[in-house]
Amino acid sequence: MENGRKALVTGGAGFLGSHLVRALLADGWQVAAMDSLLTGNTDNIDEFAGNPSFEFIKHDVTEPYDGPWNLIANLACPASPPRYQADPVHTWETSVLGALNAARLARKNGATLFHASTSEVYGDPEIHPQTESYWGHVNCNGVRSCYDEGKRAAETLLADFRRQYGLDVRMVRFFNTYGPAMDPEDGRVVTNMIIAALRGRDIPVYGDGTQTRSFQYASDAIEAVMRLIRKPREEIDAFCAAKKLSVPVFNIGNPGEFTINELADLVLREIPGTGSKTVNMPLPGDDPKRRRPDISLAGELLGWKPVVPLSEGLPRTIEYFKAKCL
Amino acid sequence: MENGRKALVTGGAGFLGSHLVRALLADGWQVAAMDSLLTGNTDNIDEFAGNPSFEFIKHDVTEPYDGPWNLIANLACPASPPRYQADPVHTWETSVLGALNAARLARKNGATLFHASTSEVYGDPEIHPQTESYWGHVNCNGVRSCYDEGKRAAETLLADFRRQYGLDVRMVRFFNTYGPAMDPEDGRVVTNMIIAALRGRDIPVYGDGTQTRSFQYASDAIEAVMRLIRKPREEIDAFCAAKKLSVPVFNIGNPGEFTINELADLVLREIPGTGSKTVNMPLPGDDPKRRRPDISLAGELLGWKPVVPLSEGLPRTIEYFKAKCL
Repeated sequence: MENGRKALVTGGAGFLGSHLVRALLADGWQVAAMDSLLTGNTDNIDEFAGNPSFEFIKHDVTEPYDGPWNLIANLACPASPPRYQADPVHTWETSVLGALNAARLARKNGATLFHASTSEVYGDPEIHPQTESYWGHVNCNGVRSCYDEGKRAAETLLADFRRQYGLDVRMVRFFNTYGPAMDPEDGRVVTNMIIAALRGRDIPVYGDGTQTRSFQYASDAIEAVMRLIRKPREEIDAFCAAKKLSVPVFNIGNPGEFTINELADLVLREIPGTGSKTVNMPLPGDDPKRRRPDISLAGELLGWKPVVPLSEGLPRTIEYFKAKCL
Repeated sequence: MENGRKALVTGGAGFLGSHLVRALLADGWQVAAMDSLLTGNTDNIDEFAGNPSFEFIKHDVTEPYDGPWNLIANLACPASPPRYQADPVHTWETSVLGALNAARLARKNGATLFHASTSEVYGDPEIHPQTESYWGHVNCNGVRSCYDEGKRAAETLLADFRRQYGLDVRMVRFFNTYGPAMDPEDGRVVTNMIIAALRGRDIPVYGDGTQTRSFQYASDAIEAVMRLIRKPREEIDAFCAAKKLSVPVFNIGNPGEFTINELADLVLREIPGTGSKTVNMPLPGDDPKRRRPDISLAGELLGWKPVVPLSEGLPRTIEYFKAKCL
């Protein structure tokens, strides 16, 4: 595999997608970034222009595609509620048809398929922290379902491609992740708060702000993905057999739990003197009240754990947004 | 609409599909039955051959289709675990792509879309009986997920087609239904037991037989569907608004609860003198331990309730299988 390591990253102009492109290039892969640019942005991949190992393909993964890749990393999907709720049918199609098109090509190529799932498959969980074996608590026809159920159905399909066709499928469930390359307008809590504070506007806090989130810095997430991609398949299969896992899917997140109010306080401390203050807003439909990953499985298989605390990652992210948006 | 009432029934050569074809023909519709014949059987629709209001279209709903229908009734999907687990990827595709293809055509035609969902969207439920507002308890990457999650993702898509495009979507969640036209080899509990008893073989009881099921006779299910199809859209929309339902989806089943052991006793009583006896077998993966519908919503909207008890429906079904299989 040292010769001809060709990777496709769908959603490659997106937040985590562009970080993965960078990591794969650094690791010696030839990398194609595919993106519809509906939520991705070429700003995130401009730095790779002129790199002979890199190419950009503008394409929507809801339509079939073809190419010689032996690694397909499927990260294409709008991931923030305002973005994925802007066109719910297309969000569902991106998740569901995107997984199907990736799986069919990976099967044809005998390629490895890395798939980015999400903590949203747990919905509004009834156990804390969430382990991968938890089935979740998800509304299948609410306003978040296009994303949550779309992502669940993608996992279902890929688990069956592995069982039925022996496809080398590797999945992670990303919990809240933040960092440079985030879309300033994605409407997620970290970007919302930073952008509001930088612009001296009030910081929106949905509900009473006591709901908790875990915040993972992007480099921690990408390190986990690279370790999972590098792992020989036999080791993954043996690990799944030993742990009685029906499919290799791993929580990737930072277990450090913060309330939304604590996050707001931290943002206000890091961006002083703007006159911003928090203001409470109504909680949107089906918003999960609490979510925190159990990452022991990923730790055991990959020797991985997050190393960037919020107190380090948040200032770095603020620097990024200052440069981009001010 | 009295002129040109053209209906498509996908899965029209299947168990419930063929009953719906008969009911629609009797109601004055022109009816096309579409079926891949992977689990459907032309035996179920032979009686309509020569009827100028009927046509059969051999087609797999995972591929797009077109036609002038103003009602699309989407019932295509293998529904018994042995059938749907024979090719899990295709089962997922049938549910997911089948819903997408039906929805796209219904939108193009401005047609009504009736969709057959299932009690399996509740998985292994933690509340009894199940109301439509219950989110369910479902494994998204187990051996039943191709059906359960495929059906959930179909509901998700159709709910969004209604919200986003105003599509006239009407869904039911069928609980266990039985009756003439069932596939004798579908591996479901009622057919398994009847066929075993008719052939003098042991009756398989999975687990200890104390898990319960509700059994709905086919004519009761079809009566509910016809009432839902005949309902003016404005009444359905008003009902949903009054009840704060995000989408019109209704449990359709018989709340009478029987243990698997009670069902076996009833079958043995109705088919005496064959020397059959029950024999316990291991419970398959993710088998739900209990399921029972709350049908008050359907009762209120449709003035419907099941009227055929198991003590009537079972002998009629046994007569059907005697004629077909002996």
